[in-house]
Amino acid sequence: MATSVRDLKALEWIDAGGGALRLLDQRLLPSREVWLHVHSAEAAAQTIREMVVRGAPAIGVTAAYAMALAAMEADKSGASEAAKRAHLERARELLAASRPTAVNLFWALDRCARQVASDPSTARLLDLAKRIHAEDIAANEKIGELGLRHLQALTGPFGVLTHCNAGALATGGLGTALSPIFLAHERGLPLHVYVDETRPRLQGARLTAWELGKAGVPHTLICDGAAASLMAKKKVHLCIVGADRIAANGDTANKIGTYSVAVNAAHHRIPFLVAAPSSTFDLARTEGGSIPIEERAGSEVTDWGEERTCPPRTAAYNPAFDVTPASLIRAILTERGEISPVTTEQVRAVIGGA
Amino acid sequence: MATSVRDLKALEWIDAGGGALRLLDQRLLPSREVWLHVHSAEAAAQTIREMVVRGAPAIGVTAAYAMALAAMEADKSGASEAAKRAHLERARELLAASRPTAVNLFWALDRCARQVASDPSTARLLDLAKRIHAEDIAANEKIGELGLRHLQALTGPFGVLTHCNAGALATGGLGTALSPIFLAHERGLPLHVYVDETRPRLQGARLTAWELGKAGVPHTLICDGAAASLMAKKKVHLCIVGADRIAANGDTANKIGTYSVAVNAAHHRIPFLVAAPSSTFDLARTEGGSIPIEERAGSEVTDWGEERTCPPRTAAYNPAFDVTPASLIRAILTERGEISPVTTEQVRAVIGGA
Repeated sequence: MATSVRDLKALEWIDAGGGALRLLDQRLLPSREVWLHVHSAEAAAQTIREMVVRGAPAIGVTAAYAMALAAMEADKSGASEAAKRAHLERARELLAASRPTAVNLFWALDRCARQVASDPSTARLLDLAKRIHAEDIAANEKIGELGLRHLQALTGPFGVLTHCNAGALATGGLGTALSPIFLAHERGLPLHVYVDETRPRLQGARLTAWELGKAGVPHTLICDGAAASLMAKKKVHLCIVGADRIAANGDTANKIGTYSVAVNAAHHRIPFLVAAPSSTFDLARTEGGSIPIEERAGSEVTDWGEERTCPPRTAAYNPAFDVTPASLIRAILTERGEISPVTTEQVRAVIGGA
Repeated sequence: MATSVRDLKALEWIDAGGGALRLLDQRLLPSREVWLHVHSAEAAAQTIREMVVRGAPAIGVTAAYAMALAAMEADKSGASEAAKRAHLERARELLAASRPTAVNLFWALDRCARQVASDPSTARLLDLAKRIHAEDIAANEKIGELGLRHLQALTGPFGVLTHCNAGALATGGLGTALSPIFLAHERGLPLHVYVDETRPRLQGARLTAWELGKAGVPHTLICDGAAASLMAKKKVHLCIVGADRIAANGDTANKIGTYSVAVNAAHHRIPFLVAAPSSTFDLARTEGGSIPIEERAGSEVTDWGEERTCPPRTAAYNPAFDVTPASLIRAILTERGEISPVTTEQVRAVIGGA
């Protein structure tokens, strides 16, 4: 079972045929498993914008491969080094404009830009992308081990609640929030996962349930509004979510609805954990209020496929993320160690930064 | 505008042609306004079960008219008084089994049963149903006036959040939670309503947005998970919801997700009000833990029309209601007055009971 989890992939680099990035089209899950082949940075930016690939770490890895694709494009066109640098810079800008909140995107692009500055060779850029991908896989495993300890501390059959998707589909590897869950299941811990469906895009219903089903992890889908009542009924013993950007004080931007889960967890004295690689930290922001929050089209709320669910003139407000203050987070699990209590001092001690 | 609100109706009794109950098929809103004619208690029970009509007060009024229809059926078949009483008792049982949580249903059926016990004449039963309907309309107005005072106490442009639908469509009249909103808008108060879409059945998107749109009340639709972040941004100054059953201590059962709103409101120190007629109280229950909570089909969560949104083997848990403890409720507005603080003593003082 766990083997099959490690076989779940959101993306894959294909060396053959001049190189391409394969992406599982997550918009079509769970009903269809369709892989798209991406051959240009422009196409990669579009897949990020349209959420073919989503999840902060997976977006970062995709952007790194996209920079390698941009380098290949320049090579093919016989560009001079100056022209190649200019092409790579345009690719970087295009990718940086694809989605605003997940900082892993900018982190990966910054690493690529530094590589371009020192040596814009395509081989180096591809090596860097593969390294970023491999690092993410390793970070997921480390985060999983840290989270597993929290689950092992729970006694008897226990319930874990997660929001959105922070699994294999959101990362290069096993996932962030789901990684400890997969490891716990692998070791036979008696856990049951409650999956928030996560309106408006239903990443919980479509993606997390799909991953848990593939791995054979017992789980139940609920509407986002039902999480609090499950907590009141003592069915939930721990909440764990991923992150799109974490400020220097530990304030965490994640999928809209996360903050509501955290407030409810605090009210019921249930530990609320965040699982994210160090690339998710934005140490230049002292607190979460300054994190840019993507606002997506209201039609994600008002329309269901071809059907409009509300009156024609009703407008919707559709922020894609919210910010959970550090005070509501018991611990942040990273590949560099666990941040607990969640304070600026602890973030600095574990992640680094001025 | 307000006139058009008073023209909004969920149900209407038609005397012509031997009598019939007209029900707006709320399953088809907002895209289609289709009225069904109901001529039997059995058909009425089905409309309640299938949520053609919903909302605790509207269910109570529907059940009362359904008992009058049952009496007419007995008359048409030339039944003896004993046979008529037996037929009415079967109708009462059928209606009582239609939905378990809204206590207004049982309250209305009990009043009808007392009428049957003293005099099972059809005219008396129809009079009683019309009286129950008229009382509900009057209760809505009174509740609206009480709620209006809370809104008038807010300064500047303010935001009000509501969950599910407790408007004209949920009652015999102007609504419970929406009644103060309609009155405030009528008087030109600068309010903006945030409408939780209310998964899984989207009563907020489908019904509340429809009512607010008809009345010209400024409003914005949000996903349930976005309510907390709006509160953090100080966009919400008051929350108001309806109720399906209220225990003697003020614990309130209402649409799933209400409890989460209440917890978040408390966290952000935003007043959380419940608006409900006295028929919503179940004084035999000392607290909310013993209120029966309807569990509806998981398919309401897993399926969207013909489309399944999660993997085929994923199961969903779909409680239709949750219980908000009295401690999180600033006040309960009823036609008999306002209950605040929400304690057993105050409930007794306003509603009565041992």
